[in-house]
Amino acid sequence: MSLLVIGSVAFDAIDTPFGSTGKIVGGAASFISLATSLLHNQVGLVAVVGDDFDFDFIKLLNDRGVDTTGLQVKKGEKSFFWHGKYHMDMNSRDTLVTELNVLGDFDPIVPQNWKNPEFVMLGNLSPQVQLTTLDRLESKPKLVVMDTMNFWMDIALDELKTVLKKVDVLTINDEEARQLSGEYSLVKAARVIRAMGPHTLIIKKGEHGALLFGNEGQVFFCPALPLEEVFDPTGAGDTFAGGFIGYLASVGRTDFEAMKTAVIYGSAMASCCVEQFGTTKIASMTKADLAERLNQFRSMMGYELEA
Amino acid sequence: MSLLVIGSVAFDAIDTPFGSTGKIVGGAASFISLATSLLHNQVGLVAVVGDDFDFDFIKLLNDRGVDTTGLQVKKGEKSFFWHGKYHMDMNSRDTLVTELNVLGDFDPIVPQNWKNPEFVMLGNLSPQVQLTTLDRLESKPKLVVMDTMNFWMDIALDELKTVLKKVDVLTINDEEARQLSGEYSLVKAARVIRAMGPHTLIIKKGEHGALLFGNEGQVFFCPALPLEEVFDPTGAGDTFAGGFIGYLASVGRTDFEAMKTAVIYGSAMASCCVEQFGTTKIASMTKADLAERLNQFRSMMGYELEA
Repeated sequence: MSLLVIGSVAFDAIDTPFGSTGKIVGGAASFISLATSLLHNQVGLVAVVGDDFDFDFIKLLNDRGVDTTGLQVKKGEKSFFWHGKYHMDMNSRDTLVTELNVLGDFDPIVPQNWKNPEFVMLGNLSPQVQLTTLDRLESKPKLVVMDTMNFWMDIALDELKTVLKKVDVLTINDEEARQLSGEYSLVKAARVIRAMGPHTLIIKKGEHGALLFGNEGQVFFCPALPLEEVFDPTGAGDTFAGGFIGYLASVGRTDFEAMKTAVIYGSAMASCCVEQFGTTKIASMTKADLAERLNQFRSMMGYELEA
Repeated sequence: MSLLVIGSVAFDAIDTPFGSTGKIVGGAASFISLATSLLHNQVGLVAVVGDDFDFDFIKLLNDRGVDTTGLQVKKGEKSFFWHGKYHMDMNSRDTLVTELNVLGDFDPIVPQNWKNPEFVMLGNLSPQVQLTTLDRLESKPKLVVMDTMNFWMDIALDELKTVLKKVDVLTINDEEARQLSGEYSLVKAARVIRAMGPHTLIIKKGEHGALLFGNEGQVFFCPALPLEEVFDPTGAGDTFAGGFIGYLASVGRTDFEAMKTAVIYGSAMASCCVEQFGTTKIASMTKADLAERLNQFRSMMGYELEA
């Protein structure tokens, strides 16, 4: 079923204890589109870049079946740029540079043939842009998944709460869940956040896995694959979201049981993403690679109910 | 099959953001014995207390089928006492008072009828006492499980490494695994620690669950049950270890598949333990309570392989 993705397509520069990159392709929608396109072939992208962007990357998306009709290219302007530095534990990071550039006045234009998508992925962006995108659709999607971050909770909480009323699934990390709900216990946080709009909440815990909360009492836990080395966590959450909604769109389901499997797909793809800088590894991931990781999850989570 | 438990039986005083206790029963072997005795009826305890101890607790153990012939009561001496204070996140704590008392010169005397146990649980104690206990056995057990902590890595690393060579399964937390191995990645840490002796390693991550590492490539992840409130984490690791080895002793198995299920049992019992102060909740846990928690784990971890 048709899946509309909106989010940043941008440049990143990454410093980690293991090395640094120059300007490389990044942005939430880049990771999301790459992940979804491994699972599904009806993906449309709404985003904006400057004419400094790496158009080989756009060609790569097209080759993978992503419709980039909704990608605006602003002449004489520069793409969004983020420069971040990870600490030794790879769980925390500092932002060194943020240049909004074309993202500063991004008007999300949805192409006519993408105005009735069945699945919508709102990648991390200003809540106002996320809301405008939803307002421009002509029919209610089967499922709207939204990602956001603490930055928007700090500066645009009211707008964020307005969008939340219109989404089905929210994905945030544990600290963000605590900030948004004012509750330390994630069980209580999930209850508070679900009352804000989304019927389903995914709390991402990085190397500690992810929790999926549905209706009262419905909870599923997906571990992160223990890795030899986490090379670059950038885009792991976006890749997770892409794998999640890409799986659901590919099977055309939105029930809690399907979401459990979707969380496994998202985690399997995120575990791949972090093993190299930027989009490198997720762009080269094959269906065979994915099948192997899914097997690892099965082995890691399956047990005899009674021995 | 017969299961010998050694460890501290002691007094604790606990301060948490939710309240404080006076002196209450604590100690690794208290939690371990309570947990094992819900699953198994051939449990023997080797420990030492002063004559100030709460002997109603010993009677409780006896009523639950624990053989306390190996419990030494030192006349005119005081039981081990620990006073700790938990921080708001309940994951970190400060030790306010430690009084070794009878534990200072504990000589672990193994009763004659317990010198050939099939399963041995070495609760957290000085490595020297753990080693002496093993040396006093007359035959090699089917399975020796050892718990320890960073304190012994700081002050008795050589002795700790000597015991490690004689144990099958080690249970430690993630920080301790990193300290013992010198590796940040838990996958690498597991490889280093398994080369020190234990063929199996369990890394406890508190609210983030537990990882079970067997032979190269064998890994199992067990989540922690998401709880409304963690009231007192004291004894959670001991209860986990008790549930783990209690399950294995009850089914008489030591293979990796059985260990996976055993980790679920341990986690289910630990999730119960932390909901009240000290041993209160684990002492009143029933088989029906356990069955309910096991169902919650099944629901939280099971998913359709393909939707």
